[in-house]
Amino acid sequence: MGNASNGSVGSFPGKGRIETLTDGIFAIAMTLLVLDIRVPMLPKEITAIGLEHRVFILWPKFLVYVLSFVILAIFWVSHSIQFHYVRRANRTLFYINILTLMLVAFIPFSTHLLSEHIEQQFAVAFYGSHLMLIWVCEFLHWYYVTTGGRLVDSDIDPHEVSAVTRRILITAVTYLAAIAVSFFNTYLSIAAYGMIIVMCIMPGRIDRYWDNGKQ
Amino acid sequence: MGNASNGSVGSFPGKGRIETLTDGIFAIAMTLLVLDIRVPMLPKEITAIGLEHRVFILWPKFLVYVLSFVILAIFWVSHSIQFHYVRRANRTLFYINILTLMLVAFIPFSTHLLSEHIEQQFAVAFYGSHLMLIWVCEFLHWYYVTTGGRLVDSDIDPHEVSAVTRRILITAVTYLAAIAVSFFNTYLSIAAYGMIIVMCIMPGRIDRYWDNGKQ
Amino acid sequence: MGNASNGSVGSFPGKGRIETLTDGIFAIAMTLLVLDIRVPMLPKEITAIGLEHRVFILWPKFLVYVLSFVILAIFWVSHSIQFHYVRRANRTLFYINILTLMLVAFIPFSTHLLSEHIEQQFAVAFYGSHLMLIWVCEFLHWYYVTTGGRLVDSDIDPHEVSAVTRRILITAVTYLAAIAVSFFNTYLSIAAYGMIIVMCIMPGRIDRYWDNGKQ
Amino acid sequence: MGNASNGSVGSFPGKGRIETLTDGIFAIAMTLLVLDIRVPMLPKEITAIGLEHRVFILWPKFLVYVLSFVILAIFWVSHSIQFHYVRRANRTLFYINILTLMLVAFIPFSTHLLSEHIEQQFAVAFYGSHLMLIWVCEFLHWYYVTTGGRLVDSDIDPHEVSAVTRRILITAVTYLAAIAVSFFNTYLSIAAYGMIIVMCIMPGRIDRYWDNGKQ
Repeated sequence: MGNASNGSVGSFPGKGRIETLTDGIFAIAMTLLVLDIRVPMLPKEITAIGLEHRVFILWPKFLVYVLSFVILAIFWVSHSIQFHYVRRANRTLFYINILTLMLVAFIPFSTHLLSEHIEQQFAVAFYGSHLMLIWVCEFLHWYYVTTGGRLVDSDIDPHEVSAVTRRILITAVTYLAAIAVSFFNTYLSIAAYGMIIVMCIMPGRIDRYWDNGKQ
Repeated sequence: MGNASNGSVGSFPGKGRIETLTDGIFAIAMTLLVLDIRVPMLPKEITAIGLEHRVFILWPKFLVYVLSFVILAIFWVSHSIQFHYVRRANRTLFYINILTLMLVAFIPFSTHLLSEHIEQQFAVAFYGSHLMLIWVCEFLHWYYVTTGGRLVDSDIDPHEVSAVTRRILITAVTYLAAIAVSFFNTYLSIAAYGMIIVMCIMPGRIDRYWDNGKQ
Repeated sequence: MGNASNGSVGSFPGKGRIETLTDGIFAIAMTLLVLDIRVPMLPKEITAIGLEHRVFILWPKFLVYVLSFVILAIFWVSHSIQFHYVRRANRTLFYINILTLMLVAFIPFSTHLLSEHIEQQFAVAFYGSHLMLIWVCEFLHWYYVTTGGRLVDSDIDPHEVSAVTRRILITAVTYLAAIAVSFFNTYLSIAAYGMIIVMCIMPGRIDRYWDNGKQ
Repeated sequence: MGNASNGSVGSFPGKGRIETLTDGIFAIAMTLLVLDIRVPMLPKEITAIGLEHRVFILWPKFLVYVLSFVILAIFWVSHSIQFHYVRRANRTLFYINILTLMLVAFIPFSTHLLSEHIEQQFAVAFYGSHLMLIWVCEFLHWYYVTTGGRLVDSDIDPHEVSAVTRRILITAVTYLAAIAVSFFNTYLSIAAYGMIIVMCIMPGRIDRYWDNGKQ
């Protein structure tokens, strides 16, 4: 860590420390999601509704927990890859990063809103817009570091750059489509969010560049 | 950190950053456990029940806190050891890891469920199943990295690999047995969970390999 | 990490570990802010007030979330830059740092107070005083490490030192002015807090030193 | 980080990762303390009691926040210093460490208990006993690593070892005395806890060894 920040003498806080802060915020946002799910209480008087049932009806909470956790993980991967290419940080990059992290740290709110009101179009669209916004920030971030090779290595493959750009933009646009779906059917919209996850987890063209790099 | 991620040029986010994220999630899950235990209030009117008694009757909460904290610590050790053998990360490994971390970050819920309903068979079995599932993921993780020497050093001792495998599987199976016990006696089942902890803390065959390695 | 702490044999806990603790506390304080914003519930009976409206009226909460998040980020930058110059830590520096972190970790309280009582002069002044106090600590920190070149490199440019000092003091004094404004108009005061953010994000004289360093 | 754990091939999870986990748990425990202090609400009807007063009467909460935050910081220093001397980790050391961290992560409970019931002897003694227990663990930790030079450098100065031992034991015994005082006067007891803080912050004999080391 000390090395990482010393590595950038006379510059903005080193890439290493920004990565630590970033990893911390992601880890906490992911772990805070569980606080949204409250343990059901059993009334003192005898009742026909047992604990199993009371836990079972929490299923929207469990579903949205999985959704948000994996989405944050996917986004962490995308963010880490960008920082992998970045050679040095500067003031503008840091504040684009902070804008992104501000949205990341806000995920527990949208998650709670969706899990509490899973049948409300507004909650579904709010959640989707939040995710889309994160990918827009991610695009800004990538656009800023790569334009004119500003903060990346000069010998970076332009095809690799556009493969990353394409992946980010396709994800953002797909979220936009999924939000539009929510006006017709909220459950279909949530299913679309789930499909975007699968799409992001699957290996893409970008992996090919990495595999080539290893040969 | 910067070095760790640079070390894997042209690949998935480096092992170093995945470890930071992992350590963060474990640390937070372990620390959130305490939020489950609410400080008792004293009613304004004079009452025969003092603060000592009100704290004392929280014993199931204290017990389950210790249980979950140590279980997370044991699991962290197991997880760290696996990453110790891993030479490089890839997409599949990352998402197996995320599946595991998703279950780790969910421990505060199962802990709260158990501490609130310690006499309910459902809560005891839910808690045990959660732990067993984590060890199943741990097995998947280990199986993935070692099969055909996929992500480990080529000269890894096969006896060492199977010693780790055996340790993981025995733990998972013992949890299954402890869950079965809960149908007869929930307290016996919790005692079994406690015994699994002792079993995991004790040095095993795997330590012998490490000690040999040091000579 | 191990290296970072070994780097300072026979001394107070190394700079590297203090940075890890610091980054952790910042990351958590920034992420806890979201817990302040509670998801609105919908009453069971049919009601004219929809979810959109109930989320919309949370705007003071959203505003203060953004304010506090960015303020913590700015402060993290300032703090990281100081540690960038510090060559070694000692006991006094550590406890000045702890005093600062104690105030940083307290930000969620002042944030909650402000977002809950945004029209109350006391809440606005409390929030501003809290921020001002952090910058006073930051000044103490910087004054301690640089006076007589105590913990910094001997060849540090004195103009660079005073550029940092000036930036810190101007921020503290501007907060004082913004607090004074709250006695006349609380919204104007909050607008002033926002303007201090813009002022801090904009590149300043200090950046010039870094750019020179890179040539 | 990767380097730190690779440094200890064929052994228990490296010292570097244990330090990351430790720093994480300390950072979170310190930051969770603030959640104990709830922002006062103002009733809708006009009332004579303003916000200032409602915040002011929270003083026991603020006091105990400062107390616990600084105590955790002091303990983090002591713990980091021990790890500074440790050359390698093993299974036993790890579980002594986990026992300690389990008590550290529990501090928010004792803090809340004390701040809620500051006039109750039981709460004051509970808090003190908790702190004393942490120092007993710290003693165990130090005793284990140094006895027969088990996990430290062979050329460690025995006077340095006993200086650390003495500091730990004196702190533990002083807590015992402060707990005894609580049977007569709880406020005197809390004042004693505060004095132990001052005692721990002041430089001691141990600093002399570090200063010598630097010459």
